[in-house]
Amino acid sequence: MATATEADAMRRAVALAARALGATSPNPVVGCVILGPQGTVLGEGWHRRAGGPHAEAEALAAASAAGHDVRGGTAVVTLEPCNHTGRTGPCAQALIDAGIARVVYAVADPTDTATGGAATLAAAGVATEAGLLEDEAAAGNAAWLTSVRRERPFVLWKYAATLDGRSAAADGTSRWITSADSRADVHRLRAEADAVVVGSGTLRADDPHLAARDRDSAVQPLRVVVDTHASVKPGARVLDDAAPTLIAVGEDADTGHLPGVDVVRLPRAGAGRGGLDVPALLAELYGRGVRSVLLEGGPALAGSFLAAGAVDRVVGYLAPALLGAGPAALGDAGVGTIAGALRLEVTDVARLGPDLRITAVPTASATAPEEN
Amino acid sequence: MATATEADAMRRAVALAARALGATSPNPVVGCVILGPQGTVLGEGWHRRAGGPHAEAEALAAASAAGHDVRGGTAVVTLEPCNHTGRTGPCAQALIDAGIARVVYAVADPTDTATGGAATLAAAGVATEAGLLEDEAAAGNAAWLTSVRRERPFVLWKYAATLDGRSAAADGTSRWITSADSRADVHRLRAEADAVVVGSGTLRADDPHLAARDRDSAVQPLRVVVDTHASVKPGARVLDDAAPTLIAVGEDADTGHLPGVDVVRLPRAGAGRGGLDVPALLAELYGRGVRSVLLEGGPALAGSFLAAGAVDRVVGYLAPALLGAGPAALGDAGVGTIAGALRLEVTDVARLGPDLRITAVPTASATAPEEN
Ligand SMILES: NC(=O)c1ccc[n+]([C@@H]2O[C@H](COP(=O)([O-])OP(=O)(O)OC[C@H]3O[C@@H](n4cnc5c(N)ncnc54)[C@H](OP(=O)(O)O)[C@@H]3O)[C@@H](O)[C@H]2O)c1
Ligand SMILES: NC(=O)c1ccc[n+]([C@@H]2O[C@H](COP(=O)([O-])OP(=O)(O)OC[C@H]3O[C@@H](n4cnc5c(N)ncnc54)[C@H](OP(=O)(O)O)[C@@H]3O)[C@@H](O)[C@H]2O)c1
Repeated sequence: MATATEADAMRRAVALAARALGATSPNPVVGCVILGPQGTVLGEGWHRRAGGPHAEAEALAAASAAGHDVRGGTAVVTLEPCNHTGRTGPCAQALIDAGIARVVYAVADPTDTATGGAATLAAAGVATEAGLLEDEAAAGNAAWLTSVRRERPFVLWKYAATLDGRSAAADGTSRWITSADSRADVHRLRAEADAVVVGSGTLRADDPHLAARDRDSAVQPLRVVVDTHASVKPGARVLDDAAPTLIAVGEDADTGHLPGVDVVRLPRAGAGRGGLDVPALLAELYGRGVRSVLLEGGPALAGSFLAAGAVDRVVGYLAPALLGAGPAALGDAGVGTIAGALRLEVTDVARLGPDLRITAVPTASATAPEEN
Repeated sequence: MATATEADAMRRAVALAARALGATSPNPVVGCVILGPQGTVLGEGWHRRAGGPHAEAEALAAASAAGHDVRGGTAVVTLEPCNHTGRTGPCAQALIDAGIARVVYAVADPTDTATGGAATLAAAGVATEAGLLEDEAAAGNAAWLTSVRRERPFVLWKYAATLDGRSAAADGTSRWITSADSRADVHRLRAEADAVVVGSGTLRADDPHLAARDRDSAVQPLRVVVDTHASVKPGARVLDDAAPTLIAVGEDADTGHLPGVDVVRLPRAGAGRGGLDVPALLAELYGRGVRSVLLEGGPALAGSFLAAGAVDRVVGYLAPALLGAGPAALGDAGVGTIAGALRLEVTDVARLGPDLRITAVPTASATAPEEN
């Protein structure tokens, strides 16, 4: 049984891990706290970026820098310590070498390459305990865990709308439907995502910038435009150097006007849908190390993602306003009748200034790709 | 200063008053608790229906039936005791005659006919105190207070929609977008309203019954269909005898197929809008004693009410589902650009089973009628 001190340490480790959301892909976020035999905190650390030291190594280094002897101590860590030598050595071995007597972790490592850390520790005589605050830790790593399971990036679809589901007025104006608080929250989502994706319609209508505001450039997401005909103009704001950008185009698109721009050619969507194939786009992003995508729209592209069963979480910013006319927040998602509605489960409701932020996840049946 | 015992009694009086919502119009709901000089509850009562005894009389009668002597006691009442002889005698005088020494009330009576009760009491040497739990008591009487101020019924617009603002799927199917919990809540709203109003489009599409389920017939609302061309069929469910029904038609409508049906002829809407004039409809209902209207839609009629500045509260039942196509929850409300959006303030968010119920009230500027 884990102690109350260990549970407190795990809570702290989950919080530490969250600091690096958006910076560690293709790795998970991980936090670690080292406790002395009496339960004193000797060191803490988190995995700050892919290629950098793992959380356990950071925590051990912090303890050592503070002059603490960690022998006989306990490592409290959000994810099972890894067992493989990648860009850094295996954490299980590092903990054994440091003389750690006990390891408490929240979530078992689900990957083929890194799993086995607990067994290695146990074989070396280190006591291990799994599952402490597993739900909290898994929620903190939802994007990474989902991407491991689905072998594609985790996709969060964000939309802003009025209570009657409009994303703009009849004349197309939409600044600002939602409040400054909601817009700040979207910047947080951007900073936490590896990539931000929009369709060419949104690009043409809004010339969006898509970078995370007031954030260190290390955590800027990859900006992705899904643009079959390479309609993006050379002066588009999304092409500036505030963050990297990828333009996904059709196999036959003319990209002569975009020298130096990172362009990927993708197949067209099947099944009578316009545009590019969503699974192919996600596979391309996954191959580039993207583990979490913030899908910012617009309505047409979001409909294609939903129809493909490629949305893992929905965050709706609902402004307390009514329009009665204007474009809908969501376009064709392949649903023709009420029995085919994409059913979700609301997991959180928050007030952001005057607005409501509703977070929901598809229920199991709704994530199945559309049948053709 | 009111005592804690009096505050408790006022809370009880507010709860008692609420029992009669939907049954007292054109009167307010009122609750009353009589306390003895030591703060013991001697009797309680509420105004159960228009024409019946007022709350104060009920409470005095209850105290007397229980053999209590109320002389020197305190009457705690949600609304200033009335001063006029209507279908029953003035309550202020009844309290004086009973020997009540002190009257604590929450909300001052805003009507010309009934006001003055506090002055009458004071002139007779009864101590009076106003404003105890005024906000709670006013909220419980919101419909009646609003109708007094606006000289038209209070209007609550209720809609059910998906998170993307659709009230039905592309093929028109909509059973059931929202959950059983939400539908039960709508039946409560019906029972609390004096009238339930729908447009002819909803009548044709759904053949709704509009009566409150499982409710004593005394609190059934008046069912109102806004039906310019008297398109309602003689066998429509709304014409059964579960509750009274009024069909509002245009001045030139042919109603020969509706013998025995209560029909009112109203002028057409101005300003290029189709259908009947909303203020004329509300004036007609007000004249019939209706003080609270539950507007159940559909989208077109709701748009006209909103455009006329005739919605006082919005209750949206949002199902955690996405459709991406299908009719919108709200039709044309005369808003063309984002600056003209009807702004609301969210006053409550509740979970009803899987659904969210969002309650909002128009902000001051949004209740102004549209300019032509
Ligand atoms: N309220 C919000 O949260 C929000 C968010 C974003 C945008 N918007 C608004 O949405 C409006 C734009 O709407 P929209 O629906 O035209 O924009 P969109 O979804 O951003 O772009 C749609 C376009 O993307 C391209 N595309 C490529 N692959 C696609 C695929 N698999 N599925 C669908 N589209 C694909 C298509 O054009 P090509 O094939 O020609 O490339 C398609 O016309 C703007 O007014 C914007 O302000 C609102
Ligand atoms: N999700 C929900 O909460 C909800 C609630 C109700 C209905 N619905 C759905 O809404 C659909 C019907 O939509 P709808 O918009 O046609 O129905 P509606 O708003 O109920 O009816 C509109 C009709 O009412 C008449 N009308 C009379 N005076 C009017 C006025 N001042 N303004 C507007 N209309 C006036 C008009 O026809 P005439 O002039 O010819 O009489 C108009 O075509 C149905 O499918 C129903 O299931 C959904």
